[in-house]
Amino acid sequence: MNDNLLARATLMRLAEVGDPVMGHLIDHSGPCAAVEVVKSGAFPEDFLQQALNRADHRRRLPTKTDLLRRLTTWRARLLQADPAADLASGQRLGARLVTPENPEWPTQLDSLGQKTPLGLWVHGTADLRFSCLRSVSLVGARAATAYGAYVAAELAAGLSGAGWTTVSGGAYGIDGAVHRGALTGDSPTIAVLACGVDIAYPSGHTDLFAAIRSQGVLVSECPPGVPPTRVRFLIRNRVIAALSRGTVLVEAALRSGALNTAGHATTLNRPLAAVPGPITSEVSAGCHRLIREGSAVCVTSFPEIAELVGDLGTDLAPTPRGPVLPLDALSDSTRRVLDAVPSRGAAGPATIAVSAGVDLSTALSCLGGLSAAGYIERTSQGWRLRRTPMATVSPRRTP
Amino acid sequence: MNDNLLARATLMRLAEVGDPVMGHLIDHSGPCAAVEVVKSGAFPEDFLQQALNRADHRRRLPTKTDLLRRLTTWRARLLQADPAADLASGQRLGARLVTPENPEWPTQLDSLGQKTPLGLWVHGTADLRFSCLRSVSLVGARAATAYGAYVAAELAAGLSGAGWTTVSGGAYGIDGAVHRGALTGDSPTIAVLACGVDIAYPSGHTDLFAAIRSQGVLVSECPPGVPPTRVRFLIRNRVIAALSRGTVLVEAALRSGALNTAGHATTLNRPLAAVPGPITSEVSAGCHRLIREGSAVCVTSFPEIAELVGDLGTDLAPTPRGPVLPLDALSDSTRRVLDAVPSRGAAGPATIAVSAGVDLSTALSCLGGLSAAGYIERTSQGWRLRRTPMATVSPRRTP
Repeated sequence: MNDNLLARATLMRLAEVGDPVMGHLIDHSGPCAAVEVVKSGAFPEDFLQQALNRADHRRRLPTKTDLLRRLTTWRARLLQADPAADLASGQRLGARLVTPENPEWPTQLDSLGQKTPLGLWVHGTADLRFSCLRSVSLVGARAATAYGAYVAAELAAGLSGAGWTTVSGGAYGIDGAVHRGALTGDSPTIAVLACGVDIAYPSGHTDLFAAIRSQGVLVSECPPGVPPTRVRFLIRNRVIAALSRGTVLVEAALRSGALNTAGHATTLNRPLAAVPGPITSEVSAGCHRLIREGSAVCVTSFPEIAELVGDLGTDLAPTPRGPVLPLDALSDSTRRVLDAVPSRGAAGPATIAVSAGVDLSTALSCLGGLSAAGYIERTSQGWRLRRTPMATVSPRRTP
Repeated sequence: MNDNLLARATLMRLAEVGDPVMGHLIDHSGPCAAVEVVKSGAFPEDFLQQALNRADHRRRLPTKTDLLRRLTTWRARLLQADPAADLASGQRLGARLVTPENPEWPTQLDSLGQKTPLGLWVHGTADLRFSCLRSVSLVGARAATAYGAYVAAELAAGLSGAGWTTVSGGAYGIDGAVHRGALTGDSPTIAVLACGVDIAYPSGHTDLFAAIRSQGVLVSECPPGVPPTRVRFLIRNRVIAALSRGTVLVEAALRSGALNTAGHATTLNRPLAAVPGPITSEVSAGCHRLIREGSAVCVTSFPEIAELVGDLGTDLAPTPRGPVLPLDALSDSTRRVLDAVPSRGAAGPATIAVSAGVDLSTALSCLGGLSAAGYIERTSQGWRLRRTPMATVSPRRTP
């Protein structure tokens, strides 16, 4: 068995997910030596000096007591850790532990720096690295509306049909709709879980997770058997953002966990988009705030999402345009003549010419064309608008 | 009777609304001399030279034939014009002709340059100039959805209650909802019509127009009795945009006339905003396109509109924030301890301390606090989560 694999399986039992001190220690010593450091109960002196001078994301310097307390916890957990049993139970499940040393490792995760996962448990038929090459994250509220769930499924189905892998969190609401929509296309879908890949949480998604495994992968930083916790959900979100080229928020209230994923995308300098919705809907308020502040691009269709995260110049979305109406084809003077033809009663060419502001010969020529096109008709009293069948393009409608 | 007033009433019968050649002629000669020019049938030589060198908005230079054809039309119409009768019929209605020479003239209209209205027929109790000092235009589709009409009325009611005059076009759909919403507040509302102020178009708005006259004004560039035409609707939109400090699009399809008003607001360098809606709704597609392109700000409430068009620093909208949940108040270590307390079975303080990654004394102190706050309870087997009544803040919920 690979030493690094066993060492990483050990370290995943010791540190909290996303703990930058463990990330730093592995950067410093490598996984095997890091296990020895924990066993010895003392950090190498040069590592300690580096760690004490390194502020966390809140620009707070750690104290020596902080670091040593972590080491004490890790040592206590080391006594209970059984990495060989973890690897064996993963194998029984059909799951694999993918580490940075493995060719299936998606290298874009390394942009998380010292918060890079120590390894990822992967369960499913798709290749994680290959699937993530053209991938986009779609996340949103668990308490989704029917509108949000419909839109999430439609966008994911469109993206999947266009060869894009979708990444989400496997939760109820938007996440579930994203995976279900993606499964209607041919592309993989990836669910990043906050618990072991053997745990169906939420339990109502047992069948969905089975379907994801057959067309994509379940992914987790937690060893098999580890239950979800609130903190793990938040920490997990950075992996969703880091696996994909960009993140799309479908529905999110002002305090949605999905906003946390959006924040990670921004921190990683990946594109962020949000889908608008009714302003009367609380679960669209988070999306609208990000759009309003300019943090997220407003997207309304899957081609717009593909354009945002796609390759320059090759994944362009068509600009939406309305239908061309027959009236658009008319010249300025013809339209003015048409406006001057009465809908009630009728008028002669001279009256129409003055009213339209054109000379008589222009008016006569325009009247002939309009008549041929079916807009107007000649009566014994003069010209008038045709009521039928051209009612839908009547010039009396407000443009 | 005022000569300028009579002259402008005459010219309003001759030129198309918004005709820049007439605007130029009045700039050059003044209203009274402009009438004499039309009577004489010849433009002053220096005016002709200026006009021939002045390109229109499509960067097209007019030809001498264009200009002379206009003069011929104006002369023909002069024979039929009866400005004294127009002024008399306005007086009978109770309407007044407001011109740039009048103190009620809203001077911001002059930013339209040579497309400034020659005068405005005003019908209603409000003072036009004063009403427009703090005003905002809200426009949108006639084929509005129930959502759009509701939102338009709510936004207008909020703005009216906050002292903002609302300007719209008096049409069915969004326009009508704006005026109705505004009438529930105390501020004036202004309907800019594409026909004479004596014509109730659409006829279903007869009662609404009466209500607007009693709390605001009906406004038109057309003399009494002139019916609406397609071209007049489009030209009218520039007045809606120019009267107010900024324009808000509530619902607009990709080819809505409301987008034309939006374009005028942008041309005039006035703020432009759009209200998002469901991406499944065709009448929100125009709003979304403007937001997506960065042409319009996304707005979701009337304070956000007031902030956009209001005075710097005094009309600020509060940033929307979600409610503060009890769990937010917990410290990092307390939350980790809470996450480590099992929901099924129970665990002792030492197990919880290792799982949470804190030392035993910290764990004990956190457990005491969490118990006092009602999150957890002590059993004979150790600590466990309380099922009731704290289920809504259980740490097992996905954040």
